[in-house]
Amino acid sequence: MAQALVVINPNSSQSVTDGIDAALEPLRGLGVPIRCETLAEGPPGIETQAQADRVIAPMLDLAARLEPEALGYVIACFGDPGLHALRDETALPVLGIQEAAVANALTRGQRFGVIAILPASVPRQLRAFGAMGVTDRLAGERPLGRGVAALSEAEATLAAMVETGRALRDEDGADVVIMGCAGMAQYRNPLEEALGIPVIEPCQAAVAMAIGRIALRQG
Amino acid sequence: MAQALVVINPNSSQSVTDGIDAALEPLRGLGVPIRCETLAEGPPGIETQAQADRVIAPMLDLAARLEPEALGYVIACFGDPGLHALRDETALPVLGIQEAAVANALTRGQRFGVIAILPASVPRQLRAFGAMGVTDRLAGERPLGRGVAALSEAEATLAAMVETGRALRDEDGADVVIMGCAGMAQYRNPLEEALGIPVIEPCQAAVAMAIGRIALRQG
Amino acid sequence: MAQALVVINPNSSQSVTDGIDAALEPLRGLGVPIRCETLAEGPPGIETQAQADRVIAPMLDLAARLEPEALGYVIACFGDPGLHALRDETALPVLGIQEAAVANALTRGQRFGVIAILPASVPRQLRAFGAMGVTDRLAGERPLGRGVAALSEAEATLAAMVETGRALRDEDGADVVIMGCAGMAQYRNPLEEALGIPVIEPCQAAVAMAIGRIALRQG
Amino acid sequence: MAQALVVINPNSSQSVTDGIDAALEPLRGLGVPIRCETLAEGPPGIETQAQADRVIAPMLDLAARLEPEALGYVIACFGDPGLHALRDETALPVLGIQEAAVANALTRGQRFGVIAILPASVPRQLRAFGAMGVTDRLAGERPLGRGVAALSEAEATLAAMVETGRALRDEDGADVVIMGCAGMAQYRNPLEEALGIPVIEPCQAAVAMAIGRIALRQG
Amino acid sequence: MAQALVVINPNSSQSVTDGIDAALEPLRGLGVPIRCETLAEGPPGIETQAQADRVIAPMLDLAARLEPEALGYVIACFGDPGLHALRDETALPVLGIQEAAVANALTRGQRFGVIAILPASVPRQLRAFGAMGVTDRLAGERPLGRGVAALSEAEATLAAMVETGRALRDEDGADVVIMGCAGMAQYRNPLEEALGIPVIEPCQAAVAMAIGRIALRQG
Amino acid sequence: MAQALVVINPNSSQSVTDGIDAALEPLRGLGVPIRCETLAEGPPGIETQAQADRVIAPMLDLAARLEPEALGYVIACFGDPGLHALRDETALPVLGIQEAAVANALTRGQRFGVIAILPASVPRQLRAFGAMGVTDRLAGERPLGRGVAALSEAEATLAAMVETGRALRDEDGADVVIMGCAGMAQYRNPLEEALGIPVIEPCQAAVAMAIGRIALRQG
Repeated sequence: MAQALVVINPNSSQSVTDGIDAALEPLRGLGVPIRCETLAEGPPGIETQAQADRVIAPMLDLAARLEPEALGYVIACFGDPGLHALRDETALPVLGIQEAAVANALTRGQRFGVIAILPASVPRQLRAFGAMGVTDRLAGERPLGRGVAALSEAEATLAAMVETGRALRDEDGADVVIMGCAGMAQYRNPLEEALGIPVIEPCQAAVAMAIGRIALRQG
Repeated sequence: MAQALVVINPNSSQSVTDGIDAALEPLRGLGVPIRCETLAEGPPGIETQAQADRVIAPMLDLAARLEPEALGYVIACFGDPGLHALRDETALPVLGIQEAAVANALTRGQRFGVIAILPASVPRQLRAFGAMGVTDRLAGERPLGRGVAALSEAEATLAAMVETGRALRDEDGADVVIMGCAGMAQYRNPLEEALGIPVIEPCQAAVAMAIGRIALRQG
Repeated sequence: MAQALVVINPNSSQSVTDGIDAALEPLRGLGVPIRCETLAEGPPGIETQAQADRVIAPMLDLAARLEPEALGYVIACFGDPGLHALRDETALPVLGIQEAAVANALTRGQRFGVIAILPASVPRQLRAFGAMGVTDRLAGERPLGRGVAALSEAEATLAAMVETGRALRDEDGADVVIMGCAGMAQYRNPLEEALGIPVIEPCQAAVAMAIGRIALRQG
Repeated sequence: MAQALVVINPNSSQSVTDGIDAALEPLRGLGVPIRCETLAEGPPGIETQAQADRVIAPMLDLAARLEPEALGYVIACFGDPGLHALRDETALPVLGIQEAAVANALTRGQRFGVIAILPASVPRQLRAFGAMGVTDRLAGERPLGRGVAALSEAEATLAAMVETGRALRDEDGADVVIMGCAGMAQYRNPLEEALGIPVIEPCQAAVAMAIGRIALRQG
Repeated sequence: MAQALVVINPNSSQSVTDGIDAALEPLRGLGVPIRCETLAEGPPGIETQAQADRVIAPMLDLAARLEPEALGYVIACFGDPGLHALRDETALPVLGIQEAAVANALTRGQRFGVIAILPASVPRQLRAFGAMGVTDRLAGERPLGRGVAALSEAEATLAAMVETGRALRDEDGADVVIMGCAGMAQYRNPLEEALGIPVIEPCQAAVAMAIGRIALRQG
Repeated sequence: MAQALVVINPNSSQSVTDGIDAALEPLRGLGVPIRCETLAEGPPGIETQAQADRVIAPMLDLAARLEPEALGYVIACFGDPGLHALRDETALPVLGIQEAAVANALTRGQRFGVIAILPASVPRQLRAFGAMGVTDRLAGERPLGRGVAALSEAEATLAAMVETGRALRDEDGADVVIMGCAGMAQYRNPLEEALGIPVIEPCQAAVAMAIGRIALRQG
């Protein structure tokens, strides 16, 4: 099998993986094969720190098994479970979608807003922004109040995302918005149109960055 | 069995657990039973992010088994693996030794220095200090260049700790020093004497804080 | 007289001292004697920077007189007047209730909110949070609009605290609340129940921390 | 003429443009045409804030002339002169090499070091890092003591870069190094080999990021 | 002609220069001659980053021509275009009105609010506050929604400024307000009266600071 | 007696007051009378936090007595004892020399270094810089190792200041230096000449700022 950039969805929902896969379509033209994998051992959605932490071990094992076929890895769960652990264990490029989305956002606006799924996601992600040292660029983070499963109800989800995005833009002063879950990929285009400011789908951000690293042969 | 504050050493080295247990002796006078547990599934020492992440699942399981006998938990590994996950899963007080050591240090000096074990520990811990939002209080972090196993060689370890502590004090401007590993407990007293500034043993800091929370019945 | 941890209320209101004393009841089980003192030279309540600064000299003098009977000191005024000065003058542990409440809050939530008494308290306390280097963890600070004397009117005070706490939680994103005055101690339990997130009474936080330091014989 | 990503070297040295062009070779495989332009009106090298500011107007004019043939722009001068101005004036993606190098570095290590050309470059770049809000991730910045012209003397320049990079790594704690001038491109590979930590050539970082944006049709 | 402190209005509106000149009247009593110059090459108002960047070159040239008659310079455009460039090119004191207004505000309150002209001004100024390292002191910045030309309509402008200032004070927690445009000078007194907190007119702040530097013969 | 700007030296050493008075000579040409007062109740030099705190009450009393003759106040002790308290008690302008020196330094270089008198001064001043929110601009602070009394030995003091200033410049990266004690005034000119970067005498900085405020009739 040809080597590919391996995108690991650490939850077990194939529909989420399919949504990620579709979102990456425009990046396939760059010539680096992209392969999306679902972590069978994951929960249907990752909503708590405990769930995030518990997927790390099986995800590291999956990555190790796929190493001969891998050009690099993207961990496709906002929260970046196992990001630094996988970097410890491989010399290939490893990107996390939260970290890459923030790196991307720094070049798209002065203050980024984040749409989280549930209220409990917010402190977890604030810790990550603190660890990245980018808190001064964070306009705000607001939860959608919908779990991973509920994200597939398209109409209600998009309406909630537009409302949350407007609050980030108008009340918190965000001039760029990050979608804070890999399961939101299908809503990027209509959300950006509704908000009138850039909306970053984090899997796209991470894969684009990984492709550059692979092209440059930089681990 | 009487309920106790459960201190979990997530590496599998009983000698480290014993060192922690001895360090907690002065706190036993406060009347809250303290019970130190070794995580059988852990590695002999936790030195990489991957090792830290991989102990979380078994540690959460151990904590769940011990819950009926627990008054609270202390996770006795600098790096606080699973700290927020365990907080998600229990209503009892949960303290991590890195977080508690920093909270303690904020009241002991203006800039804290940290003695890490190995160079690779430093970026991992810098991320944690960033997540805690206390980077402005960090004078510096310097590795000892000794892994967990080597910490038991008393003479060489103490000499290295004194040298590292002096560099933190004299070159980095630390006026309080945190020992950045649960396996350093036995060296606190001579190190503090050699440096002439407060030295914080993080298991002591976390257990003292946990006892206060238990006495106040605050989760 | 047996030695004790000395808690100094630097205002002259015995009722405030009594409220502190009652709040510390659960910590008496830890076996370290606690003695609460009222500073006769203080004003009835400390509401301005000038009042805070003017109590320092008599408070230092009181502490010096009590030194033979002291195991350590807690300065029980949010704003921590004389905290660092007293640390200069004694080798015993010295805790301030604002500093200790923040140290405690860092382990209870990701962003702390503070209930101040009066609008003029806010800039004074923001300076203290800046000096502590914890501004990134501060969700917000909101004044109650009630001076120290008015805090004793229980019904109206609790209602105002609940309203202020809800604004900190819902508008500012606090997931832990600090009561920003030693005179609020009696309201901790009902306020926590009303808010559903941890509420920190700062005298409890400081005394718990002091007891740990005393048990460890760490100055 | 086919549309291309336009990389503008705002100094007038064709040799610098040629070095940039060569450094971008590995990214040409991604299928997005890349075209490097020299700003005739620029000085031979940009070493002061006044020089940086004075190239903005002609650079904006050049970009406007090239707009029909452009897929996006990269401003290839560390310091990013005119970055936000060009973003004001076009809907195409605009990347600056300093900003993109930092975004990239955030995913490669915990603290980045920067090799500047001259001492006077340092305060200018510190202002930029402050504006980006990433100061907490900066390990240090050290000048090479060589102007743009002198960078072409290969042996002496590489030796100075290795020495400077080692100081950033060993004294300042950098675990990733950014080359702080577009004229250093040819030295990336040997410098990375000598230092043993990632070295980021900023034109590569910016062009890789721009290609992702172009593929995603995101302005 | 006697030497004077040269205040350069880099937009071409003489009415703005006249407003600045009037605002400086109280500072003329200090005995340092003050001379206000309009940059003929500037646009009628500076509202975008591109406009700000494009005035730098002619402004540097004007300053160079005036050097023999100058005791120092103030760049009278909020955003401080060319501030560091002019400092590179002269040994005389050079102050920018944004930087000086912030320096002044740090001594007048704990958190400053800023009244910007248009929404697009906000990210530009946030970058400047980040470069100054004073983001922790910023309460908020709110646009008036009026361009430079519209500022001359006195009644509507003052009403909008009062409304914006109240939002900064009451919703964002500002205890001092900076007028974020040189064209607002005439409204300082009524705005301060309406808000009841200090209002800083930035040209006054910069000129006062420049006069001190000139008196002390400090470049 | 004519009204004057009152500069209060809160230590009791007339020689220090005389040195301040001499340093202010160039500012007398601006036409605002300046009157330097020694606080009889102060210690000969202020070297500890306790000493700083203990002078506040008598200093507030002195200021109150002088109010009818005052145009404004400068508190001439680095550490700014009583700064905010005096602001609470008067509507006149009140400047502190530490705060004003920092405000001045922000316009003179990108990173300021501070020459403290004794090692114990450093944590006290770091707290003040944190409260000001300017820590990111601080290059470093280094103690001279000389108390206030020893500052009058001219030759040894200047030599030590030059050595300390060079370390701040060359090792810590300062491009502007603040003299961290009112008793160092006489050494500003030779120190600046020796270092080749701006040296700020804090009494001059504060008085210059106060004169601007008085001229503008801004409290």
